[in-house]
Amino acid sequence: MARVGNLMSVRNDVKVFDATLRDGGLCNNFEFTDEFVRELYWTNIKCGVDYMEMGYRASKKLFNPEEYGKWKFSSEEDIRAIIGENSSSMKLAVMADVGRCDLEDFLPKSESVIDMVRVACYIHQLPAAIELVEKLHNLGYETSCNIMAVSQVNENDLKNALDMLGQSSVDVIYLVDSFGYFYPESSAALVKLYVEYAEKYNKKVGFHGHNNQNLAFGNTIETLSYGASYVDATVSGMGRGAGNCAMELMLGFLKNPKYNLFPLLKFIENYIPPLKEAGVKWGFDIQYMITGITNSHPKDAIRFTNEGRTDYSDFYRDILDL
Amino acid sequence: MARVGNLMSVRNDVKVFDATLRDGGLCNNFEFTDEFVRELYWTNIKCGVDYMEMGYRASKKLFNPEEYGKWKFSSEEDIRAIIGENSSSMKLAVMADVGRCDLEDFLPKSESVIDMVRVACYIHQLPAAIELVEKLHNLGYETSCNIMAVSQVNENDLKNALDMLGQSSVDVIYLVDSFGYFYPESSAALVKLYVEYAEKYNKKVGFHGHNNQNLAFGNTIETLSYGASYVDATVSGMGRGAGNCAMELMLGFLKNPKYNLFPLLKFIENYIPPLKEAGVKWGFDIQYMITGITNSHPKDAIRFTNEGRTDYSDFYRDILDL
Repeated sequence: MARVGNLMSVRNDVKVFDATLRDGGLCNNFEFTDEFVRELYWTNIKCGVDYMEMGYRASKKLFNPEEYGKWKFSSEEDIRAIIGENSSSMKLAVMADVGRCDLEDFLPKSESVIDMVRVACYIHQLPAAIELVEKLHNLGYETSCNIMAVSQVNENDLKNALDMLGQSSVDVIYLVDSFGYFYPESSAALVKLYVEYAEKYNKKVGFHGHNNQNLAFGNTIETLSYGASYVDATVSGMGRGAGNCAMELMLGFLKNPKYNLFPLLKFIENYIPPLKEAGVKWGFDIQYMITGITNSHPKDAIRFTNEGRTDYSDFYRDILDL
Repeated sequence: MARVGNLMSVRNDVKVFDATLRDGGLCNNFEFTDEFVRELYWTNIKCGVDYMEMGYRASKKLFNPEEYGKWKFSSEEDIRAIIGENSSSMKLAVMADVGRCDLEDFLPKSESVIDMVRVACYIHQLPAAIELVEKLHNLGYETSCNIMAVSQVNENDLKNALDMLGQSSVDVIYLVDSFGYFYPESSAALVKLYVEYAEKYNKKVGFHGHNNQNLAFGNTIETLSYGASYVDATVSGMGRGAGNCAMELMLGFLKNPKYNLFPLLKFIENYIPPLKEAGVKWGFDIQYMITGITNSHPKDAIRFTNEGRTDYSDFYRDILDL
């Protein structure tokens, strides 16, 4: 399968997806200030970003709203209080985790400020994810399905899952490198498989990377070159653990003149240092590299980070000893 | 051109090249402590690193030794004072910049502790580089030629240069991304060209990346997969500006059991925090991304860094206005 376009191309199928509030919210318990959210919204519009994810829409039955910032739940009222009816051409999204959301929290699209719901699941939850996708599709939303931790899934299960998604109403199928295990070569190989199924069923493919091996951006643009069109990025790579593909790298890379880096640099100058100074932590470090190369969940590396440890060799020994 | 091997392969042609003292020396004026150099030497041996570059061998006529640390000059005596005769199987190298070194500083190989001399040049210096390569080859050294700033070279000149190098006595031809301009896709395309010439003339190809767009590691493993075999890396990516491919990422990637990550993690714990605390600066930041995407020398970004500035948007405007 040949590359799609080239490094100078303008590809109108590409959609830049800002996941800062959602994946970045995992770093600060979703406690962004209203000013941060409002300014990020306007920045994204000025930068030409295509979709902005406002957060999760988690179940208030399962999670106590008093224990999280409001972007864990991203209610219609909270979104509207900040950005009104979204009269821009940028689309808004929320993420719904299978088994951790309530369908009753989703209005019909005609009454909602949200355009897309991204359904996240593990492979064993795929039938539940498809059921949720169908209900959200029937409410009028665009949908994606993001199968997480796919680096631990066997290829036969994955092919079956992609075929089932192909036959569903989902619009976008996301390749997700939850553990930051992929290399450009493996990302390219897998995205070709996703694109093969997507083309058969007239779906789009997206990529969501993690930066455990400093490859979130490199893997993202490799998948783009082999036919992914939805690309996730976050401001300064803010996201769980080692973080995600940095939006500034993505906007610096894309040649389509609709994208504009300058407003994002202004936003970063003003709003990222206060987060860092408040102790919010994310970004590449060796402990994340170690969970990446061992294809494991970053939770031990996050604990190591939060404990302020730098004894990387002990961490490596302990991980290999599990 | 197909990939060479795969992500599980052991490739015996691969040579891991530690450039910490040389490219990292550009961050601290080559003022490493003797302990740092000695421990790095033993760490590299324990890790299975194939070559260790001790520094530049710069002309003491052009550069005043009192103004630099000793690894700007890497004399035989200074090397031997730290590591003796190098009875290990790891090879030692120095870098010689065309026009900034003196041939008289190079003993015959039989009297030297050095195995390889890497000749760095700009494309217009290629005939001078080849003359130097021939003299060093005749002294008995392995040689490489590292054409710098090749992202600004037109393809016809480059092909002529590669053909001239092919006909020379050089052993390794290095693809060098001095400005951090390349993507995995462009790195792959260029290394295929280098490998095409190298195979015709029975030479090896190396890659030296910079991390301006957080792609030093990603680009390095892409070039590896398309036939490069000498891969430069530095401890924690220490190198000018945004730095280089991190050795820890490279050792974590390679599957050959001769490579061992653990000793390097110990070294990093002990020796990198003191450098950072002393104010030695390197690593990815937005100013380096901006000089990377504009294919320009990092000197303005280094000045911005040293001035402690974070007004990235002003820097971007100024760079575009040049």
